[in-house]
Amino acid sequence: MAESPAIKRKREEKEGKNGSAASQNERPAAGDFPLAELSVLKVLRESAREKAIFLHGRVNSASGDETDAVVILEKIPFQEENIAELLKKHTAFQLQMSNDIYSTYRLFLPPELNEIKTTVVYPATEKHLQKYLCQAVYLIQETGEDYKNITLPFIESQSFSIQWVYNILEKKAEVDRIIYENPDPINGFVLLPDFKWNQKQLDDLYLIAICHRRGIRSLRDLTAEHLTLLKNILQEGGEAIQKRFGLAKTQLRVYLHYQPSYFHLHVHFTALSYDAPGCSVERAHLLSDVMFNLELDSQYYQKCTLTFALRADEPLLKEFQEAGKA
Amino acid sequence: MAESPAIKRKREEKEGKNGSAASQNERPAAGDFPLAELSVLKVLRESAREKAIFLHGRVNSASGDETDAVVILEKIPFQEENIAELLKKHTAFQLQMSNDIYSTYRLFLPPELNEIKTTVVYPATEKHLQKYLCQAVYLIQETGEDYKNITLPFIESQSFSIQWVYNILEKKAEVDRIIYENPDPINGFVLLPDFKWNQKQLDDLYLIAICHRRGIRSLRDLTAEHLTLLKNILQEGGEAIQKRFGLAKTQLRVYLHYQPSYFHLHVHFTALSYDAPGCSVERAHLLSDVMFNLELDSQYYQKCTLTFALRADEPLLKEFQEAGKA
Repeated sequence: MAESPAIKRKREEKEGKNGSAASQNERPAAGDFPLAELSVLKVLRESAREKAIFLHGRVNSASGDETDAVVILEKIPFQEENIAELLKKHTAFQLQMSNDIYSTYRLFLPPELNEIKTTVVYPATEKHLQKYLCQAVYLIQETGEDYKNITLPFIESQSFSIQWVYNILEKKAEVDRIIYENPDPINGFVLLPDFKWNQKQLDDLYLIAICHRRGIRSLRDLTAEHLTLLKNILQEGGEAIQKRFGLAKTQLRVYLHYQPSYFHLHVHFTALSYDAPGCSVERAHLLSDVMFNLELDSQYYQKCTLTFALRADEPLLKEFQEAGKA
Repeated sequence: MAESPAIKRKREEKEGKNGSAASQNERPAAGDFPLAELSVLKVLRESAREKAIFLHGRVNSASGDETDAVVILEKIPFQEENIAELLKKHTAFQLQMSNDIYSTYRLFLPPELNEIKTTVVYPATEKHLQKYLCQAVYLIQETGEDYKNITLPFIESQSFSIQWVYNILEKKAEVDRIIYENPDPINGFVLLPDFKWNQKQLDDLYLIAICHRRGIRSLRDLTAEHLTLLKNILQEGGEAIQKRFGLAKTQLRVYLHYQPSYFHLHVHFTALSYDAPGCSVERAHLLSDVMFNLELDSQYYQKCTLTFALRADEPLLKEFQEAGKA
């Protein structure tokens, strides 16, 4: 399943990637972050839609040292149980515009009814700043030839570890999280909740089916030979979700990612009403469309041009650029 | 192009659809909305991601009358120019969690630095309540046969007016908004900004190409015969956007909707970095994929099963349900 940020973070720390070990000696005591002394150097990223902003700041200590920090501010969602109180206790309500039955106002609330979630990374290294920096994205049109000449050699050179996937399939990890399994080694799979989903509400339901068969890296490896596996995932996965969570198949979006985040075939199940990250047309491929295309032409995914976006800092982009293809 | 909510609203009003005319006599004076006297009856919809909530409320007047209202609360985005002030003037900053270099806090701000945009529809009719009510969505798998037997007869029975599209093509409206035109009656098109885009920043760039040729209702009507038209839209549209707005083709998402919102072929161009509404995999079809499929098989879009979502209140859903297909 897709790694949660927490897990990614842990791995990076183990591998010493974020440099936190090196800087631990000078680290201030937890809970000590001097917000009022922060100078904002740069907005790394902002999302008007999600009401969040990512800041690169610097703290000047009394001793003259400067320490970088990443500060993420995000307004929190409205909570149904607080609404009545919030409407009664406003400090001001100012008319902005009025037209017939429609009007808009500026509403001001007491601080405690309108908090902001703040996440701090402190001290932050250059790696952290890069991680949160808004990167330009580029659309890649990968032909079948491009896959063979650029993408496949790149994947093979990277030796991404997918031991954590094998641990799940071999019941060495996350055994108690498995929702359903078809144990067939060729056409079977396990279904489990994605780490992004807390299983507390169906609104953002998110599960992952991971196939037992090894060596199917992605969409690009699929042929008509895999139709039984795909059909099992679509049908049995949907039934298992209906049985366990009560959500009908007509309320599920079932798709693969290309590029995937790891190269062992897996399928995403998300609630149709949930605007899930990664379900946009330049990354997601509906499993039912994939099956239709394989029935039409077994070599469809070896021949077709696949379109996907790469961020400026992704190494695969450089490979495409060096080949004159991006 | 897709209608903006404002335009939709105007049309509904003209057609007397929302009943505002009937209720205008009892309408309170503008700017008079008694927020503190509002009883919240129901949450019509909420978006945790966008920090917005849609409420159905009722106002009890002194005379004992009850009047329905829709109240929409939405937190506003952070503004870069206010950030420094906001960090300095907080009223409280409380540690929630701390782990190594990572920590989270609850930040509380003075009311004036953290306003909430409030939109009121008052008095609201049943139509308004329905409009804002969160509707269940259902995934439809429309086979080629389903299209012929269910969808096409439905479209033809509805006689949706697309006079506004013809007005654009004939230069009777929006002439000054046209960004580019290829005037060929068979393989030409006009390109203009979508109403959702204010043209002030590239972040949410959104344009629409509308083909000159009439009678191509949607993706379902496309065959290899239309490849020249589609190629022109993809190439010339992309070039025109690069020339006018400076955004390269590799930073554009170019796609069709199925179902479309009106049945005259049009193509959406959005900034790749913009998480545009309607670009998710169950509605959007990349123009480059469409062209690949038509080259593979001229009848691809007459034969394939197309997947799309319908809301519970959409009449086409009833047609599929009555045919036992949803």
